[in-house]
Parts: sequence; C-alpha cells; structure tokens
Amino acid sequence: MQTLTDPVAVARALIRQPSVTPDPGGCQQLLGDMLAQLGFAVTHLPFGEGAERTPNLFARLGGQGPHICYAGHTDVVPPGAEEDWRFPPYAAECVDGVLYGRGACDMKGGIAAFVAAVARRVAQGAALDGSISFLITGDEEGPATYGTRKVLEWMQAQDQVPDYCLVGEPTNPKVLGDMVKVGRRGSLNARIIVQGTQGHVAYPHRADNPVHRLLTVLEALRATPLDNGTQYFEPSSLQVTSLDVGNGATNVIPAQAEARLNIRFNDLHTGAALQGWLETVCRQHAPRARVEVQVSGESFLTAPGEETHQLVQAIKQVTGREPCLDTGGGTSDARFIAQYCPVSEFGLVGASIHQVDEHVALTDLEDLARIYETFLKGVGV
Amino acid sequence: MQTLTDPVAVARALIRQPSVTPDPGGCQQLLGDMLAQLGFAVTHLPFGEGAERTPNLFARLGGQGPHICYAGHTDVVPPGAEEDWRFPPYAAECVDGVLYGRGACDMKGGIAAFVAAVARRVAQGAALDGSISFLITGDEEGPATYGTRKVLEWMQAQDQVPDYCLVGEPTNPKVLGDMVKVGRRGSLNARIIVQGTQGHVAYPHRADNPVHRLLTVLEALRATPLDNGTQYFEPSSLQVTSLDVGNGATNVIPAQAEARLNIRFNDLHTGAALQGWLETVCRQHAPRARVEVQVSGESFLTAPGEETHQLVQAIKQVTGREPCLDTGGGTSDARFIAQYCPVSEFGLVGASIHQVDEHVALTDLEDLARIYETFLKGVGV
Ligand SMILES: [Zn+2]
Ligand SMILES: [Zn+2]
Repeated sequence: MQTLTDPVAVARALIRQPSVTPDPGGCQQLLGDMLAQLGFAVTHLPFGEGAERTPNLFARLGGQGPHICYAGHTDVVPPGAEEDWRFPPYAAECVDGVLYGRGACDMKGGIAAFVAAVARRVAQGAALDGSISFLITGDEEGPATYGTRKVLEWMQAQDQVPDYCLVGEPTNPKVLGDMVKVGRRGSLNARIIVQGTQGHVAYPHRADNPVHRLLTVLEALRATPLDNGTQYFEPSSLQVTSLDVGNGATNVIPAQAEARLNIRFNDLHTGAALQGWLETVCRQHAPRARVEVQVSGESFLTAPGEETHQLVQAIKQVTGREPCLDTGGGTSDARFIAQYCPVSEFGLVGASIHQVDEHVALTDLEDLARIYETFLKGVGV
Repeated sequence: MQTLTDPVAVARALIRQPSVTPDPGGCQQLLGDMLAQLGFAVTHLPFGEGAERTPNLFARLGGQGPHICYAGHTDVVPPGAEEDWRFPPYAAECVDGVLYGRGACDMKGGIAAFVAAVARRVAQGAALDGSISFLITGDEEGPATYGTRKVLEWMQAQDQVPDYCLVGEPTNPKVLGDMVKVGRRGSLNARIIVQGTQGHVAYPHRADNPVHRLLTVLEALRATPLDNGTQYFEPSSLQVTSLDVGNGATNVIPAQAEARLNIRFNDLHTGAALQGWLETVCRQHAPRARVEVQVSGESFLTAPGEETHQLVQAIKQVTGREPCLDTGGGTSDARFIAQYCPVSEFGLVGASIHQVDEHVALTDLEDLARIYETFLKGVGV
C-alpha cells in the first residue's frame, strides 16, 4: 500500500511491462493487481478474437454516487529504433529528476498519478462517500474496435455508467496546468472519385475532363469557410490530403480523378450534415462523382459543470495556473465516453509523446497526483 | 508512266509496302523510283543511327520558281490486331469502290494523289514553268527527330527552300473539301511540383499543405481564359491531365503534390510567354514550387495568300465545296516547315485514320488528284 501512494514508483512498474498496442496483457494485469490491493472490484474484460484480442479492465471502489470514472489506456506506441533512445524505452530510468520510458506521459504516468491519488484517499479513509472506477483499455493507439467502446457497452449493461468521466490523456502542450479538454472536434474522411470521358487534349470538347470537374468541386468546398469557430471550438478545418490521377500520357485527358480529404469539425456540424454537403457539391459540379464518407468521430462538448469546475480549481491550487478549456487536437477515446456521460480530459505534458526519449518530470507526476487527489476531494469522493 | 497518272494504282502499290514507323525503307524506295520515272532528281536522305535510322527523301523536278513543295510521310501507325481487319491491312483490297489498308488516308493515298497530279502535268508537258518537289519522311508518326526537321536543314543548306509547301495530311473531318489547315496551335506540357511541410491533419497551422497550394495555383490558372480565339484560331485551351500525391494516410498532410497540364495555344501566345505566366502564378501561390515546361511546338499561321487562294479555288472547282480555313486539331510536321516558308495542309478524309479498316473512297482519290492538278496549274507549275 505504501508504494501505491507514490506515482513515480507506480509509473516505473507500469513502464517496465512493455505493452505496444494491443497491450499483450501483462501491464494491465499488474494494474489490476494494484487496484485489487486498494480494495477495487476488478473485472478483466478481454474483447476480440485472435490477433484482435484486446485486454480491457473495469475496476470499481464503492457503490454509491457520485460515481467518478478515470479512463485511459495501458497500450503504447512502438518505441522505434531502441538504439536512438538515451535510455532503453522499457527501463524506466530516472535521471536528474526525469523519468524516461515509452508511456511515461502517454499514459502510464497519468494512470500512476490517479492510482496514487486514490491510494491517498483510501489511506485517508475516504472514498466511501462516493465511488471511483477505472475504465482501462489495451487498444487506444490502434483501431480501438475492441476497447473503450466495448467496455462502455458492458458498463451500461451492468448499470455501471458513471456520473462523470475524467480521461487521463496528456492534454498539456507545454506545462502541467496549461489545458483541460472539454470536448473534441469530430473527424470525417472522404474520398471523391470523379468519372469523366477520356479523350485527346487537342479536342477537349469531345472529352469530359474529370480533373477539371474535381478541381471545381474542391474549389467550391474550399471557397466557403465551414464556420468561424465557437466559444470552445476553433473553426472547422477541411484538408485535402491526396489527389490521384496517375496519368502519364501528356496528350490524354484521363477517365477518372480522385481526391481524399479530412474534415475536423466542431459542434456546429454533424458527420451526416457534412456528408450531405459534400454530396450536394459533387452533384452540382460532377454528377457522375462517387463520394465515400467515413465519420470516425462526431464532435462533442461537455458544457462546464461542477466537476469540471472542481478540476480547474484543483489545477489552480496545485500549479497556480488557470488552465484553458480547449477542444483542439486529435481524437481520443473521450469521443466514445461522451455518448454516455459528461467527460473531460486532463493529464501530463504531451510534448514528448510518440517520440524517442518520451519522458516526464518527477515533479509533474507528483503534482498530477495531487491535482487528481484534490479533484476527488472536491467532488466528494 | 501510264499507271502513275492513276492515284488508285499508286496508292495500292504504296500500301503493299508495309512501313510502320519508322518506314524500314522499301516504301520510300518505291516512291523514289516512281518520281525518278517522272523525271525528278531524287535524293535519299537517311538520318539517325541504328534503331533511330530514318529514311527520308527529297525529290525535285525543274529548277525555276515558283517552287512548290509537297510534304508528307510514308510511315504508318501499327495496324493493331490484323484479325480485326475486314481485309488484311497491307493487301490494299478494293471492294465496292473503296480501298482498304493501313495508310490509305494517312497518308499514302494523299501521296498517290499528288504523284498522279504531277504525272498528269508532266504528260501535259507542263512543270517547266516552275518546279515541284517532294519532302517525304519515314518518321512522322514517331518522335520525328530525324525526319522533316533534318530534311529542311539539308534543303536550306542546298538552297532548295520552296516558295510554298502543301502538306498532304488528311485534313477533312468528314467529306473531301471540308477543310484546309492554314496553321496549327502550339502545344506546351508542364509539370508543377509543389513542396510543402508534412503534418497531422488535426494541426494544419503547423503544416504547409502542398495540395492546397497546388489547388490555388490551378484555380488561378483556370480562372482567366487565355484568350477568346482569333480569326483563324479557336480559343487556347489548358487541360490539367494529371494530379499526383499518392498519400494513403488519411490523417497526414503530405509533403508534396504534383500536377501535369497541357496548353494548346494560338498565335496570341508563345511557349516562352506561357512558361513565364506559369512560373509567375506558381511564385505567387506556391513559392517553393518547381515548374518543368516542354514546348513541343509553337503555334503558326500562314496568312492566306495567292497559293492558298488557288488551293481553295481548286477544291471548289472539283468538289463544289467551300473549305473552311482551320487551325484546330493536333500537331503535324507543318510546324517545322512553317519556320522556312508558307505552308498549308490539305489531303483526304481523316475519319478512319489510325483505326482498323482504314479506308478511302476511290472517287476521293481521283478527286484529290484533280484538286492537286488544278492547284498546280493555278500556281503556274
Ligand atoms: Zn494516449
Ligand atoms: Zn499523317
């Protein structure tokens, strides 16, 4: 019990269990054992078969409300060339007040800070006023098909949906206390395939140049900004990521042209509405175009309420900083959780994640544990 | 001498000498022998080495002015699958008043009609008032590196530059007498390669999307029509023929994007001026773009003078049709000749060229021979 109140000790133990996506299981087993030690009822929830088998874990302490859930992942991205690291990626070396290792920030360090916070609350004899749970997946960095989504379905079936969820992803761009995420933009991928009629460049009126139709479609899509942003969201952004014709014959108008684009959209849009817009513009300028759309996440926003207020107060108290409430950046598993309960995200500093020499300051680990502890007190668990 | 006045007999003899580009030599040898029979001084002018060796021929009858040159090619495009032909491509079968064979229209039939016209003028004791020459290449359908261009250089060195040149390409879209070409558009190919800075689609402000820069360049190039055409020329036309990025990662802004385009331009432009325009637009919207330009031919126009007037009169007299003076379509060797003397183009009907069952009506061959004969009389040779 002694060491579980120390986020550095917990983080080092977790880092020493290599767990490139999907976590083969050892790291999650270790975390489960720690939580069981603290009195949690631990349920291992592997989903998926064969190569897709994904370890997941739900653990709960106490049965009353308020029910605060901490969500995260034990899997890590590959370390790349291990010889490029200053210290081996799974050695969890501490040098000059810094802990090095794959997952130090994203997000074994974050999990360790929450474990330490809970251990301190338990040592204080608290946590019986409300209840605390962990929703941990072994596949957040991968396809995420058999991870958080499946655990949430299971939680709902078991009547274990929390009142509030805090995701421990590294949300701070530079300094601990910079930023709380209270939502995320949605993401949509589209492929636009325009059919035309092949012909000789000297006789364009006898052909139907699909490249020109595609360019006109893309001009129309780019002509109007999607919006100017909202209180918590940046303006939505459309990026054309690829154009593909592959016509090597300089005197031939090709038969087909294709574009790929991604839209990161705020709460003024839905995936379906954007799909409709893409289809309308294509119908107008390229009636023979095919549009394939995949919405990988809708946008969501947790309107700041009591829990987020308590989180911000805890951050201010420990770091002296006023975090901004942000919705930028990529997607995270919070997009799945938002469909069940209010969710915000706060963790370590993200500057070194997914890189060689991923590292975290020991003082940051301690400060984050104190922020989480203060937050739990603030919301009454 | 008898058979040389019959364009059908001459055309059949030429078709029976297979001569896919570059003419291996037999067809051109046969033509040289015919012209020698008619009293021409025949010079065989092979240029190029090894696989590039190209047979060419210059033949001249008479030494005074006016010097009228007939230009054309003995080489033909491949017949494709011979079993798809109604009659073997080199059999030169005549059925129901139609001659079938590769080169029937493009352009052994045209050459045969001119040979017959000259034979008739010679039989009439004419052609001493002026002089007639043939400029024949064995590589017009191929790279044309060792063909007409080289013969023209030789002609200039020998002081044999004609006063007027008539190219016998099949210029009529549907009916003999439709169209005389008095110029051709120029053709320019460009590759625009835009460098950007790779990044994640969620953070476009940290990247520099080369696709967007390329789209802006292409928008600017397409926004303004190059011109509205001139008396003899259609408006210039810019066709984007390919776009290439090849980025399969939906969440990545790529590092490079490329477009290929072709411009067919009239006499309001030069290749160099268009290249300057492309470079200026790229500099404006994509300073890191590389622009590669290849001008495969400048535009040219032979302002209608006495010879073209006589050609038009001959066409009207024989066919009853008023040909339009046009500059459309692809390029031909006339672009090289235009650098030395006025040049126009008139031949058979082009509808079946480069296809299986290429064919010509026997009456068209006879009418074309009469048009050429009337033209020669009209210009005084
Ligand atoms: Zn993460
Ligand atoms: Zn030809």
